[in-house]
Amino acid sequence: MSKHVIVIGAVALGPKAACRYKRLCPDAKVTMIDQAPRISYGGCGIPYFVSGEVNTVVDLQSTPYHIVRDAAFFKTNKDVDVLINTRATSIDREAKTVSIENVLTGEKEVLSYDELVIATGSKPNMPPFEGIDLKGITPATNLEEAEVIKNAVANGEVSNAVVVGAGFIGLEMAVAFADMWGINTSVVELQDQVLPGFMPKSLARMAQTDLENNEVNVYLDESVVRFEGENGKVTKVITNKREIEADLVILAVGVSPNTEIAVEAGIECDPRGAIIVNERFQTSDPAIYSGGDCVTIPNLVTGKRGFYPLGSMANRQGRIIGTNLAGGNATMAGAIGSWCVKLFEMSCSGAGLTLEQALANGFDAISVHVEQMDRAHFFPEKALMSLQIVVDRPTRRILGMQGMNEFGDALTARINAVVPLISSHATIDDVSNLEVVYSPPFSSAMDIVNAVANVADNVLAGNNKYMDPADFETCWADRDCGDYYFIDTRLAGGAKDMCEAHPDHWHNIPNEEIRERINEIPKDKQVVMICNTGLRSYEAMLLACELGIENIKASAGGMGAQKKLSADI
Amino acid sequence: MSKHVIVIGAVALGPKAACRYKRLCPDAKVTMIDQAPRISYGGCGIPYFVSGEVNTVVDLQSTPYHIVRDAAFFKTNKDVDVLINTRATSIDREAKTVSIENVLTGEKEVLSYDELVIATGSKPNMPPFEGIDLKGITPATNLEEAEVIKNAVANGEVSNAVVVGAGFIGLEMAVAFADMWGINTSVVELQDQVLPGFMPKSLARMAQTDLENNEVNVYLDESVVRFEGENGKVTKVITNKREIEADLVILAVGVSPNTEIAVEAGIECDPRGAIIVNERFQTSDPAIYSGGDCVTIPNLVTGKRGFYPLGSMANRQGRIIGTNLAGGNATMAGAIGSWCVKLFEMSCSGAGLTLEQALANGFDAISVHVEQMDRAHFFPEKALMSLQIVVDRPTRRILGMQGMNEFGDALTARINAVVPLISSHATIDDVSNLEVVYSPPFSSAMDIVNAVANVADNVLAGNNKYMDPADFETCWADRDCGDYYFIDTRLAGGAKDMCEAHPDHWHNIPNEEIRERINEIPKDKQVVMICNTGLRSYEAMLLACELGIENIKASAGGMGAQKKLSADI
Repeated sequence: MSKHVIVIGAVALGPKAACRYKRLCPDAKVTMIDQAPRISYGGCGIPYFVSGEVNTVVDLQSTPYHIVRDAAFFKTNKDVDVLINTRATSIDREAKTVSIENVLTGEKEVLSYDELVIATGSKPNMPPFEGIDLKGITPATNLEEAEVIKNAVANGEVSNAVVVGAGFIGLEMAVAFADMWGINTSVVELQDQVLPGFMPKSLARMAQTDLENNEVNVYLDESVVRFEGENGKVTKVITNKREIEADLVILAVGVSPNTEIAVEAGIECDPRGAIIVNERFQTSDPAIYSGGDCVTIPNLVTGKRGFYPLGSMANRQGRIIGTNLAGGNATMAGAIGSWCVKLFEMSCSGAGLTLEQALANGFDAISVHVEQMDRAHFFPEKALMSLQIVVDRPTRRILGMQGMNEFGDALTARINAVVPLISSHATIDDVSNLEVVYSPPFSSAMDIVNAVANVADNVLAGNNKYMDPADFETCWADRDCGDYYFIDTRLAGGAKDMCEAHPDHWHNIPNEEIRERINEIPKDKQVVMICNTGLRSYEAMLLACELGIENIKASAGGMGAQKKLSADI
Repeated sequence: MSKHVIVIGAVALGPKAACRYKRLCPDAKVTMIDQAPRISYGGCGIPYFVSGEVNTVVDLQSTPYHIVRDAAFFKTNKDVDVLINTRATSIDREAKTVSIENVLTGEKEVLSYDELVIATGSKPNMPPFEGIDLKGITPATNLEEAEVIKNAVANGEVSNAVVVGAGFIGLEMAVAFADMWGINTSVVELQDQVLPGFMPKSLARMAQTDLENNEVNVYLDESVVRFEGENGKVTKVITNKREIEADLVILAVGVSPNTEIAVEAGIECDPRGAIIVNERFQTSDPAIYSGGDCVTIPNLVTGKRGFYPLGSMANRQGRIIGTNLAGGNATMAGAIGSWCVKLFEMSCSGAGLTLEQALANGFDAISVHVEQMDRAHFFPEKALMSLQIVVDRPTRRILGMQGMNEFGDALTARINAVVPLISSHATIDDVSNLEVVYSPPFSSAMDIVNAVANVADNVLAGNNKYMDPADFETCWADRDCGDYYFIDTRLAGGAKDMCEAHPDHWHNIPNEEIRERINEIPKDKQVVMICNTGLRSYEAMLLACELGIENIKASAGGMGAQKKLSADI
């Protein structure tokens, strides 16, 4: 018996659910509704359209074989009816109807459904800044906005761009402006780091260095006070710390579930409006499904519900909904939050909790940092990867991993590898043993992902008197206090420049000389050892400990990490 | 109480175990013995030294900071005594002694141990071919051999190189000869595919195409009969099918555990001489540890013991042994066999079982193939990745995954992601939901690793009448039999060339026209649909099924896969 399924929303999750359902039940009737004229586009591609790497918005709307996914495409190829320019105004759950309205003609209609999918996605947060209605201030979340931005940029109308918000979209837009168009670009972020909530603070500092090395001004811990303009067009962003000239302002301060219609229909939602769904993505009304940016699902690390507005989540959940509409029983237990972002020279990626999030969620957590080549150190084309692991001390569980690397794919190869381990509450011992693929062009015999777990193991066992790269930077900045004694354990050649630049503070005792020169090392100061990446200083620290130096630490990541932090060193 | 640990073998596992143990127990005495003059080198780097990508063998022996890991290095930096040029001749387990002999002076000695590590690695298999003692025939497993090969190549003495064996080392050496030195290179392999035991046959065919596209002659299903020479130097390889001129022959027909000393000491070994160890890497004598290429450990997919001679396994197991020597309790339950190899344009990688291995191990297994872009299809820099998943039909368990891609790191990002899932007996539903990182420069919103599981799900459910790319090739080669009806479901422009080249056999019915032209499709033939990558033909097949065409299949991977197979199409 054929049923009628209505899908409200025709981007990502909606089309996926509709098409999956139709594939399983070809004789079903599916009506998909969207208030916009253009549907089923890859919204995540907008920064690459703005940069010019993607030529036209049509590319973002097309199949891999250049067929535009418009209403006619869905009708012909998928037998799905699509109503564009059509807004769903309300749901009557009792009567199982949706009221719709044509946004161009104002024409209204009431459609009956057997089952309903709410796929209305998210909407950009629009803080009530003074002057927010000025021309030239816009989010970058749909194709209409994307075209306005791209046209302005391509027509040479933008000399100064300001991005409000240093999350994924914000940074991708900043890169697009600065890298591809040479626009003077600034990012203003309320929190004290880029990628807040995703990158641990020390890695975020490294990402910031990449942005700043490429002429992007990054203003952290800074809030927009108002926008100023002339002739109705923005000219300045006024923050609590400065004025920034601006022809274009991108608002990228996060998104919220676009779920008024669900709230009004009495479907259970959390306080921010995210719809509560079960593992099958059914809402509190079993005839109504939802997913993607509309919903909240359990975080598999914390057990608490989270919000994961990502195209990949929407697609995977759309398939699950399609299967369940067809009478199947597909489920997703939750998510851990995995992500990646390409900046300039560097790419960043992570999964699970940062140290800050782990502590805030009540875990007795630590994190450790490793700098290591992303493939065999003797292989010619390679990069020094930064990788951090977050560990629950009592249970040894891996709670998260984050990193940065020049070769982004090589970084995602490590983050992806631990996604199943984080999801399944595996321990760092599982990461130490993790059988990542090995051959010199791709990885090391003791790969960085194994190594970072080994370092955590040593720290937990008390064998590694570990100092975080950011803490080294703090100590070094405070070097005149007289409490620290810095030892560079590289061979004299490697340490020469630093010794010459800082003869009072920088001491060179290579590993090979620790034993014979142990008496040079003071016992009344905090000894801090450093080398190129942390490998030699760790061993030097062990030896010095054995020889009676107790107040000692080894700086993880060594000078490699300090350079990425752009430390004053 | 300090104990004396003897480590026999000073490459990979030996040094790792020794150094880890010394870090945990600085006052212990460790003696490491090796019969070679040079130790602790990255043997996996030999093909890259031969190619010239790595300049000197010293690079393979050095730390990431260019310090040579010789006996003096281990003494000074690790407080490990190393005896080079020293062969361990026997073990007296009762007396806990090892007899050693200096291979240069013949001097003998007996050393006492409290605990012993057998890290003698593997030795290259040397089949008893006639003429094998001719000059110019050599394995490529140690630095001495590597230098001889590199010198011959660099001195222009090699015009024709023949590699016997199409495993990892064989193919890496073939690439080094052909790519970097322009040497006429042939690979002779006894089995009917390259990378036997690692790649499924259809993917192996694709890898072979990459080799052949780059002027490497690949002779499969072919056995060496004898080597011929002049003046004691090889000139020809005679196989059962041809004669191949050769100035240099690399024997790369696998390795075997180098464990005579363990066998003679009565330590429990399997029939091929691989030492049986427990999860702590203790042998049948609890005072003796072993690992790496010497041992056999359980395969986590089959439960049967396997042999994993890989530098990464050796390093991870070395650390475990070091921990346990120090009184710890580190374990590794087993391995699944993960690997990767860089060829010319293509890299290959895999983990777990191939379809052939799964069937041979009694699984009721299937595999499916997907061709999909390795990142968002609208992103400019991308490649069409080939990926196969092997699934146990009754339990839906993922048994293995293998693939090929131009961007090798992007491929390892997918293989690494499923390593923990294969190890933990997860299902394809876990792979469908696998939360791999997403952003357009790195992956697709429905990533290929999720997609390949979705295809397997559809095949198991009977929704996808799936045809393997290799089977399509077979059908097409047999097109004149009249049993098949080939339909290209691409739009006319895409299908034009094929229609013109094969007017009698190649029919073009785009997805958009299936419904109206359904009567053109015969019901008395095996209908085979194909498109660019398999996405459109899958949907066309569903629609045709719905309209009553039952004897129909959709060719997975489409023309993309056929091109990689170098099919006659």
